[in-house]
Amino acid sequence: MRALLLQNVKEPVTLQSRGDVQPSPGEVVVRLQAAALNRRDYWITQGMYPGVRTPVVLGSDGAGVVSRLGKGASENWLNQEVVINPGIGWGDDVRVQSEGFEILGMPRDGTFADETAVPADLLHPRPTHLDWQQSAALPLAGLTAYRALMVQGELKAGETVLVTGIGGGVATMLLRFAVAVGAEVIVTSSDASKRERALQLGAVGALDYTDSEWVKQCRSLHKAPSLIIDSAGGPDYGSLLELVKSGGRIVNYGCTAGAPPQLDLIRLFWKQIHIVGSTMGSPDDFASMLELVHRHQIEPVIDQVFPLEAGDSALKRMANSDQFGKIVLDIQS
Amino acid sequence: MRALLLQNVKEPVTLQSRGDVQPSPGEVVVRLQAAALNRRDYWITQGMYPGVRTPVVLGSDGAGVVSRLGKGASENWLNQEVVINPGIGWGDDVRVQSEGFEILGMPRDGTFADETAVPADLLHPRPTHLDWQQSAALPLAGLTAYRALMVQGELKAGETVLVTGIGGGVATMLLRFAVAVGAEVIVTSSDASKRERALQLGAVGALDYTDSEWVKQCRSLHKAPSLIIDSAGGPDYGSLLELVKSGGRIVNYGCTAGAPPQLDLIRLFWKQIHIVGSTMGSPDDFASMLELVHRHQIEPVIDQVFPLEAGDSALKRMANSDQFGKIVLDIQS
Repeated sequence: MRALLLQNVKEPVTLQSRGDVQPSPGEVVVRLQAAALNRRDYWITQGMYPGVRTPVVLGSDGAGVVSRLGKGASENWLNQEVVINPGIGWGDDVRVQSEGFEILGMPRDGTFADETAVPADLLHPRPTHLDWQQSAALPLAGLTAYRALMVQGELKAGETVLVTGIGGGVATMLLRFAVAVGAEVIVTSSDASKRERALQLGAVGALDYTDSEWVKQCRSLHKAPSLIIDSAGGPDYGSLLELVKSGGRIVNYGCTAGAPPQLDLIRLFWKQIHIVGSTMGSPDDFASMLELVHRHQIEPVIDQVFPLEAGDSALKRMANSDQFGKIVLDIQS
Repeated sequence: MRALLLQNVKEPVTLQSRGDVQPSPGEVVVRLQAAALNRRDYWITQGMYPGVRTPVVLGSDGAGVVSRLGKGASENWLNQEVVINPGIGWGDDVRVQSEGFEILGMPRDGTFADETAVPADLLHPRPTHLDWQQSAALPLAGLTAYRALMVQGELKAGETVLVTGIGGGVATMLLRFAVAVGAEVIVTSSDASKRERALQLGAVGALDYTDSEWVKQCRSLHKAPSLIIDSAGGPDYGSLLELVKSGGRIVNYGCTAGAPPQLDLIRLFWKQIHIVGSTMGSPDDFASMLELVHRHQIEPVIDQVFPLEAGDSALKRMANSDQFGKIVLDIQS
């Protein structure tokens, strides 16, 4: 079988021929139809992720057909069309992942390959209204967005939610989910075309956070958001505490702009703000996410599709943050 | 009647004779038996509180007997022994106070006087197991502690909770409440005698936060706290994110050590931490606090009792932060 191998950090990934994967007891082999990229994959190639081990086949997102079973895996899965929950070993606490939690695609070999072996309990039937590429685009971003928005963020219909930095896989999923459940969504981006796309997808407002007046604009144009979902942090974090409605929530699932240089605790306590951290999601969150996607017939936004052998170009597109939606690898093309 | 008057900020408060207070419609006059100090009173004397207006009679905490009724106030209150909820105009949202929210004792004249006029809906029968001084010590600190610990903090029996900076009125109330509901309480203080007092009151651990090893000590001696209640903030705030159990909560009701110089968002999201702001409490919170105090027969910790005419000395004791528990004014002595 073919696999995109990262031999060493800071080297390109290369397509290699390898022997068939062998499922351990309780595992199944999924013959992948499509995979999708996450920023995590890019960070690993740069050695900017804790505990990077190489060589490794990257890839947390995949959809395909179960082709072989390890010992003890239920025969019901054979030949089923599935998506894979990329969160392995969450544990028993719904509030937080266990110490042993890991994500498919480092250290365990992932989905940028013809085949991957995964524990059977990660499998879910793929949403029937999606094609293979959309199915593969869903898992990690869908799970992350669902937990941040619905579990940690507790979004309710009719609320106003601000999603900062629209464009990436999670942010576009947040937009889709929030619109689907009946929230008013405001987004930010420094890129005019991304702001335009977000408005087409149902955002009620789109602001340029590089404009020094953006907070004032947001205030004059929109209701104060009772929920803000952010993955940037950085020097402008204080603006979020200013903007959020009193009694509201700010959920962070990332920190791409660095740690905020201050936390305005007086504003935090006087406005009774909740700042909540979120990462990935539990098995229950994954199942609930699929249910939401099914109920509202939500389609992940696809940015571009690359063949598996162009994996390195796909990673470069991720590196430049030019994408709007998910970058997908078509595997059985 | 006599009242402690703050004529101008940064001047001592002085005992003055004034005419009887006149209740507006819906108000009652409470003849005070005791009052208690809060840090807020001291800050107002220093002009370090937003919107200070003078002259004013300070004081948010009071207990006494209803002596006269304004128009429309229920006659059932006449001659009742009451404590006063110092939060005025919270509004309809349980999550956060309204824009019009204010606290008794600036701008409205407060409890450092023989009499005060308050809206009748702030009255509650005083806890029968407490004397007048204890009753007066309860309202603001009890309300603040209750909301931070039980509403925003959602403390459950069996949890480990860390209360930073034990000694003040709210912190000692937090200790009492948390012990009462069956939590294990760890405290911090730079003062050995305060640490000792906290252990006597049921804390399982007491650490000196000025010791550079205190985080390490806390880790080696105690279970990781799933809830931390802090009113300091400051440069050491990152230690709280380190110490808190994954999936846990940090509640802030103050910021006496200044805004934290950084927020470690990576730790926040990976540990799925909740940072929650809390200030004062709703009318429901006040009623629930009284119920908790009654159920567990909780007694506020009294630091020292001053006669009303020694109000300025009482404020000086607050300024020095030497107290352990509430500083009380005995009014009808």
